[in-house]
Amino acid sequence: MANQNKNEAITSRSVDFAKWYTDVCRKAELMDYGSVKGFINYLPYGYAIWEEIQNYLNRQFKAHEAQNVYLPMVIPSSLFNKEKEHIEGFAPETLVATYGGGEKLADPLIIRPTSEVLFSDLFKKAVSSYRDLPMLLNQWCSVVRWEKTTRPFLRGSEFLWQEGHCLFETQAQAEKNALDMLAVYDACGKDLLAIPFLKGRKTEHEKFAGANATYTIEALMPDGKALQAGTTHDLGQGFAEAFGIRFLGRGNTLQSPHQTSWGVSTRLIGAVIMVHGDDNGLVLPPAVAPIQVVIVPIRQDAEGILEKCHEIEAKLKSMGLRVKVDESDHTPGWKFAQWEMKGVPVRLELGPRDLANNTVVMTKRVNGEKVSASIEEIEEAIPSLLQTVHEEMYQKAKAYLDSHIDEAHSLEELNTKLDKGGYVKMAFCGSIECEDKIKEITNGGTARCIAVDTPEEGSVCPVCGKKNTLVAYFAKAY
Amino acid sequence: MANQNKNEAITSRSVDFAKWYTDVCRKAELMDYGSVKGFINYLPYGYAIWEEIQNYLNRQFKAHEAQNVYLPMVIPSSLFNKEKEHIEGFAPETLVATYGGGEKLADPLIIRPTSEVLFSDLFKKAVSSYRDLPMLLNQWCSVVRWEKTTRPFLRGSEFLWQEGHCLFETQAQAEKNALDMLAVYDACGKDLLAIPFLKGRKTEHEKFAGANATYTIEALMPDGKALQAGTTHDLGQGFAEAFGIRFLGRGNTLQSPHQTSWGVSTRLIGAVIMVHGDDNGLVLPPAVAPIQVVIVPIRQDAEGILEKCHEIEAKLKSMGLRVKVDESDHTPGWKFAQWEMKGVPVRLELGPRDLANNTVVMTKRVNGEKVSASIEEIEEAIPSLLQTVHEEMYQKAKAYLDSHIDEAHSLEELNTKLDKGGYVKMAFCGSIECEDKIKEITNGGTARCIAVDTPEEGSVCPVCGKKNTLVAYFAKAY
Repeated sequence: MANQNKNEAITSRSVDFAKWYTDVCRKAELMDYGSVKGFINYLPYGYAIWEEIQNYLNRQFKAHEAQNVYLPMVIPSSLFNKEKEHIEGFAPETLVATYGGGEKLADPLIIRPTSEVLFSDLFKKAVSSYRDLPMLLNQWCSVVRWEKTTRPFLRGSEFLWQEGHCLFETQAQAEKNALDMLAVYDACGKDLLAIPFLKGRKTEHEKFAGANATYTIEALMPDGKALQAGTTHDLGQGFAEAFGIRFLGRGNTLQSPHQTSWGVSTRLIGAVIMVHGDDNGLVLPPAVAPIQVVIVPIRQDAEGILEKCHEIEAKLKSMGLRVKVDESDHTPGWKFAQWEMKGVPVRLELGPRDLANNTVVMTKRVNGEKVSASIEEIEEAIPSLLQTVHEEMYQKAKAYLDSHIDEAHSLEELNTKLDKGGYVKMAFCGSIECEDKIKEITNGGTARCIAVDTPEEGSVCPVCGKKNTLVAYFAKAY
Repeated sequence: MANQNKNEAITSRSVDFAKWYTDVCRKAELMDYGSVKGFINYLPYGYAIWEEIQNYLNRQFKAHEAQNVYLPMVIPSSLFNKEKEHIEGFAPETLVATYGGGEKLADPLIIRPTSEVLFSDLFKKAVSSYRDLPMLLNQWCSVVRWEKTTRPFLRGSEFLWQEGHCLFETQAQAEKNALDMLAVYDACGKDLLAIPFLKGRKTEHEKFAGANATYTIEALMPDGKALQAGTTHDLGQGFAEAFGIRFLGRGNTLQSPHQTSWGVSTRLIGAVIMVHGDDNGLVLPPAVAPIQVVIVPIRQDAEGILEKCHEIEAKLKSMGLRVKVDESDHTPGWKFAQWEMKGVPVRLELGPRDLANNTVVMTKRVNGEKVSASIEEIEEAIPSLLQTVHEEMYQKAKAYLDSHIDEAHSLEELNTKLDKGGYVKMAFCGSIECEDKIKEITNGGTARCIAVDTPEEGSVCPVCGKKNTLVAYFAKAY
């Protein structure tokens, strides 16, 4: 927003990756810090990325028959305590309101950390017959979790997310929904964010408390750490039973519905920053970039230059593209550095010589490659260039992920390889006991997800020696 | 959502207007009550109306160069107390969090009732030069105000709204922005909600504490009471000075910027319900109706009926219209009543005789009029019918408003006419003393807005006798 901090150096990734990250967040004006620790201001350039993610996901959710709702931001503590197994995971992390209208509240209000409890309460009133099912609801909101260590977009005391909550007649439908939504999240990575994910089921330790199964998409950051980017939960009938949600089934008997929930958060913005960024700053995928093309006039005082820039801008805008002409009084070199830092996917330069030749030079942020096009062809050239940029960004990230998946056949090997960063595949029987042991020895490494969910012939769990086991991905994680 | 409450009678408006209102809110499944008093669940059918309002306003805001952001939902009480004049209006209405992560907070956190304080804090960091101005920001969020008496959409302890906050170099720019945004809200009424508003400036008593001027759009409800539907504020330099927001001006001197804020809330949904609804339930303007056309098959088991219904549905959907075929196992009569209650603007019936004649019968919810069209022409007939429905709804509401504006020339006359309901125009000098006296005698009537803002020749303030005064609209209000 303010210009005073621009064009200052960003800490190099190799010097201090964590510092590089916060430098980029602040200097690219994605966010700044609020007045309460862990609460951030989502600035226009950062929030616009979230709006593009919302638009994409809303279309997908609606295609899956989910409808948006908005439920209260507060949960009475008496209701919050109803689903015991669930609350243990959240109670110490909550923000609690105790005064309303100047008076002490008899039943303190928890600021929502997640809304399973409220959706369950709503479902109880809204569902009575199998005709009311399936019921697929989604909510866009912010949630509060009182975190000790916070980082912009990655872990905050307040963050923006969506939470889907659905009820189904049968377990098979619920399971299918949890997997369908995982596929939606995975496609969001591939088509929108240019991020490849590992998909899989969470282990017993890592799954959502009270769920039958949790599914996850996991991204790999350049520092070798995994980032959980979204989860879907097959919640079974536990919440329904705790809240007394019942419906009259086809056989005229009272039944408990099968529940799912699924969510992604502004953490996806953190993934975009880390996966694609470089020492010059942000590199944004075209589909979410608030500015997709920046037009930099060279010698903007020369005759016809600005006019032509605005003519191109108008053409591209009429095609629905997000374009900006930078006619500030800075030098072209300053502008190049500035828009590079802000990660604009394509820079278009236009000077007197270009005007004479009827061409423009376009530079791809992802790799600095330059491409020329005639001004007449600009309406075809830009969309296809943006598509190319998206592909190149995805392939670059995919190559990094693929080259950072190793294998281990013993705990020692796992530990050594985890220390190098990246994912390590290892046979794993799936038991809590073995997972405990692995956690104990790996110094921060955890099972990120199960890679092969049906017993693989010949594999041996290195902890208990069980044969023909599952295979899991392990990594150190954010 | 659940079907069990459908097709039950709604209280007649003439019997109990307040009961009619809550009946419609609940039976049309716009909302239901949460577990904390004053906090409601916005159900899919109600929330979808809000999403259409958001889409419309986001386009308008962006056309006025405003950018969306998201700021924290909590305000430290120490910061909240900074702008003294402002806090007096809100302190008794706040929800206050005092525990975080299991520990007592040193500085309790106010759940935001409005975000002037947070935006001012952000501006302080973001603005340093006239080059940073104008800065136009907007936020979509929920706010909490601890209300004693609450009604769905009209007054709640939590409600959804947007709040625009802007900074300008000059007072003239700020004033213009406050009036421009008032025009946006007014157009939202005319073009989207089919609601005519009275526009004007608030009196000293009714304006936002600390503002130079507050502008308002006021709607008239069928019970004769006014509803304030949106406001814009020219805040002057007060907040900027309290928060130390300064910028280096063109003359190289430090200056305080001029600030505005503007907002509308889910109260607009309440206005839609009351202005258009009737004893059969909701009547929704086509532009915000979640379902614009419902197709009811007559003898849906007869050959070709359902196929043709779905063919029409697909055609209309491909044009971007929101359409539903009701193929539930209820009778056509039940369906007619059901979709009437839910306020669907156009009902399309199709039975074997229609199929044979290649025609459909369409019924307009606003007045029950029936129109026929050939099935081939349906793609032209429906959009033009929806436009007609919008016009008819607007004209009906406008005729009601126009016929309920009376005039008074003395306090006695004002009082008698206010008791009959509707607006009463009266000369008014604008002084706080006279406004106090009017308030005292009118038993709940208040100045809604100033109708004529430049002294009108010949008018006399009936309280103090001053000549050539302003003219104000008075009414009892929600």
